Amino acid sequence: MMSATFDIVLFGGGGDLSLRKLMPALYRAHVEAQLASDLRIIATVLFDDASLRQNRQSEHFIGEVKSALQSHLQPGEFCLDQWQAFSQRIAAVALDIVNVDKGWAELAKLMGQSTNHSLFYFAIPPSLYSTACQNLSSFALVDSDSRVIVEKPIGYNRDSAQQINQQVGQHFSESNIYRIDHYLGKETVQNLMVLRFSNFLFEHLWDARSIDHVQITLAETVGLEGRASFYDKAGAVRDMVQNHLLQLLCLVAMEPANDLSADAVRAEKIKVLNALRKIEGDDIAANTVRGQYHQGEVMGQVQSGYLDELGDPSSQTETFVAIRAHIDNWRWAGVPFYLRTGKCLQQQFSEIVIQFKAISHRVFGADAGPLSANRLIVRLQPDENIQLQLTTKDLDRTKVHLQKVDLNLNHETGQQDVVRDCYKRLLLDALRGDPTLFIHRDEIDASWRWLDPMLEGYKAANVKPFEYAAGSWGPTQADELLAKDGFHWRNDITSQGTQ
Amino acid sequence: MMSATFDIVLFGGGGDLSLRKLMPALYRAHVEAQLASDLRIIATVLFDDASLRQNRQSEHFIGEVKSALQSHLQPGEFCLDQWQAFSQRIAAVALDIVNVDKGWAELAKLMGQSTNHSLFYFAIPPSLYSTACQNLSSFALVDSDSRVIVEKPIGYNRDSAQQINQQVGQHFSESNIYRIDHYLGKETVQNLMVLRFSNFLFEHLWDARSIDHVQITLAETVGLEGRASFYDKAGAVRDMVQNHLLQLLCLVAMEPANDLSADAVRAEKIKVLNALRKIEGDDIAANTVRGQYHQGEVMGQVQSGYLDELGDPSSQTETFVAIRAHIDNWRWAGVPFYLRTGKCLQQQFSEIVIQFKAISHRVFGADAGPLSANRLIVRLQPDENIQLQLTTKDLDRTKVHLQKVDLNLNHETGQQDVVRDCYKRLLLDALRGDPTLFIHRDEIDASWRWLDPMLEGYKAANVKPFEYAAGSWGPTQADELLAKDGFHWRNDITSQGTQ
Repeated sequence: MMSATFDIVLFGGGGDLSLRKLMPALYRAHVEAQLASDLRIIATVLFDDASLRQNRQSEHFIGEVKSALQSHLQPGEFCLDQWQAFSQRIAAVALDIVNVDKGWAELAKLMGQSTNHSLFYFAIPPSLYSTACQNLSSFALVDSDSRVIVEKPIGYNRDSAQQINQQVGQHFSESNIYRIDHYLGKETVQNLMVLRFSNFLFEHLWDARSIDHVQITLAETVGLEGRASFYDKAGAVRDMVQNHLLQLLCLVAMEPANDLSADAVRAEKIKVLNALRKIEGDDIAANTVRGQYHQGEVMGQVQSGYLDELGDPSSQTETFVAIRAHIDNWRWAGVPFYLRTGKCLQQQFSEIVIQFKAISHRVFGADAGPLSANRLIVRLQPDENIQLQLTTKDLDRTKVHLQKVDLNLNHETGQQDVVRDCYKRLLLDALRGDPTLFIHRDEIDASWRWLDPMLEGYKAANVKPFEYAAGSWGPTQADELLAKDGFHWRNDITSQGTQ
Repeated sequence: MMSATFDIVLFGGGGDLSLRKLMPALYRAHVEAQLASDLRIIATVLFDDASLRQNRQSEHFIGEVKSALQSHLQPGEFCLDQWQAFSQRIAAVALDIVNVDKGWAELAKLMGQSTNHSLFYFAIPPSLYSTACQNLSSFALVDSDSRVIVEKPIGYNRDSAQQINQQVGQHFSESNIYRIDHYLGKETVQNLMVLRFSNFLFEHLWDARSIDHVQITLAETVGLEGRASFYDKAGAVRDMVQNHLLQLLCLVAMEPANDLSADAVRAEKIKVLNALRKIEGDDIAANTVRGQYHQGEVMGQVQSGYLDELGDPSSQTETFVAIRAHIDNWRWAGVPFYLRTGKCLQQQFSEIVIQFKAISHRVFGADAGPLSANRLIVRLQPDENIQLQLTTKDLDRTKVHLQKVDLNLNHETGQQDVVRDCYKRLLLDALRGDPTLFIHRDEIDASWRWLDPMLEGYKAANVKPFEYAAGSWGPTQADELLAKDGFHWRNDITSQGTQ
């Protein structure tokens, strides 16, 4: 499907997100002929005095994009002919977001060369959203058809999120604001929805009577990656839980919507967020574990401790958090949802584990071997995959011997002719005006409402997070959080058959 | 595990069953060192005047076994060294079962050369069971440790089955009688039990609230195969339904037993048989369809009609039957079980289809494509396989497109070092004294109790079965039997992805 006629105006065009994710996504959309022929990509890049001649700036930026594509596309994906056509779409403007004298007139002039609508992409810190919006309006660059994609994190707590949403909302109507969470663009996340709602087997068992507990893990191996000053103000809860983890939790836990329209799905997600049991006061220590990495070895490389990396020995910012959450509604009463995310962990993976209850009675003798619970495992990183773990008879033994079998539910026809790319998917959705996989301000609000008491509790307690060695699976207290309930984290994703 | 010290005395040693199935099974057990070193195989072969010299007879028979193994073992399985050791176990006696003067003394002498216990295998028509037992007893060849394996069909109706069971029971205690049904020796049938009782996912959904209907098909391509006179007295109900089909139905429908002991499992199977709703009077025409093949083409070969093959144009014997059965208990109230078997059908396959209910509400738009119900498909022939059919998202399309995926639940570790052979399995079970996979007289009795009114109804109605062309899927009335309920038979097993 061709997208409507829009130009993409990319604030922060020279940044990491732009060069590593957005440009490859746009290039792919171009190659697949999913972009309107006159769609332009206008990137703002850092303003410096040497970049006064705009043509030179575009030329330089296009060179940067070319190298980025060559590095970040898959082998064989870069094609010189396609690139030449694609690069025609690109222009760059050196611009200082906070200074109307630096580049804004040039941006206005460039945008005025076409009657296309504008889709702005704010690949910039949220603290600049308001100013960017104001200046766009001052230069009359926003109209009722303009759309804007904004990145996480939206705010620091509920108040600041409301403030940001309100500020952006003064210039764009809610239906034109696309809050992106790239996890929602993953095909496997879509497949989770399909699996739930198109299989009697799953939807009929999707509740507290059948599900024992749920684990959602977003484990990173990286440390601060140069984001120290930003990260230290945020921490793992704000950086990962408020957005990605809670969005995934919503998709697992939501009631079946009447249909898959954006409104219907959002309403169900908000119901989940509103049903999350508050964690405040003494509940915080009982149900959450914060960690901060110290020196260790990650993937064979020595990794400095967080405080050393940051250069501030007093920081109480968590680089790891584990939370036992409960959803207080009919469907999920009594089912723990264990959420976990952290930096400098042993392996990088993102995974949802839905563990079904144990069978009520074992009919097999002891010599049939151990019996595992059924699990549905939705892997989002590093590979995308959905596994159903069942128990079968080992056919190679005459006597009954129970054997766990992992079935792959991510069905590929083998006729895939496009690269799966969640940013491409979401950019095209925004161009098409489909908000289904984006986040509404009410969702942002509901998630902060749940997290605020926890974050305030941490601040009031004024204690350091537990230490954990870089390259471990986080503080041992996180293991104890599950052990109290008789569970354990699923960690070792490389030997899938053994856990 | 080594078997106890038994000799196997094989009545009907020169017959088809012996040479094609039993000898390969015993050879495999020998190669796997599962037979006691002094276990002998004594075969009775047809008595004729030219075979008075017993040694000559053994020699001749051993030659026959060798050719049979070479034909019926898998390529590369026959090994001359193994064969030479195996052949040492074999002796043959020419014997006339009904004439005590012909061979019985020789059999007694041969058996007397060892103190081993005896496991008799009656690979002979059931009409000879009683005489064989009497003569064995006359020659004092049966003691309280002797065991006997008997083949189907046990009887012609409930009375005659009771008579046979009683006659054999005068010489062997029930615990020493092993009524064999080779379907029960299939690993996949075992796996069905394991799947049901070790997976919350299945056992929790194994009832009328979740299962829509069940189909069990045993389809043969062969015709009479020289068994005309036997078959015409029996027909499809007695030949296939009374034993194989009802046994499979029991395994699908039974309540979870307390454990997998023979007594516990049998008790549950009998409960199923006793809960089968009687089909009598007008119910017969409404719930069953009998067919008789006429001329047609099966697998590219012209096949004569049943009456021509039989040479009797008046026969009303059915070569096909389809039955809509109901199990009147809490678990299965309202769930139809469709049973079907026939000769000269289009393809040979044996299969159980467990179809789950449709999802209650479709959330996907029409453009997501059709939505199939979840199914568990247990294939027993020609290949053994268990498939779980689910619906997933086609990952190769960005928009949601529903796609059926077939997951293979028959888990093979790839370390199989033995050939799966249901007769081997059951012979070893009988040698070990494990009756779990054999059929108790109470099961025989319960299955005839259900079938007798139906069979008497056919007789009283005195009408010919519906005609069907050899090479078809049976009479169209069998399709209508399901169509009335909104279902259709799963037929085309070669294109698994499309149904």
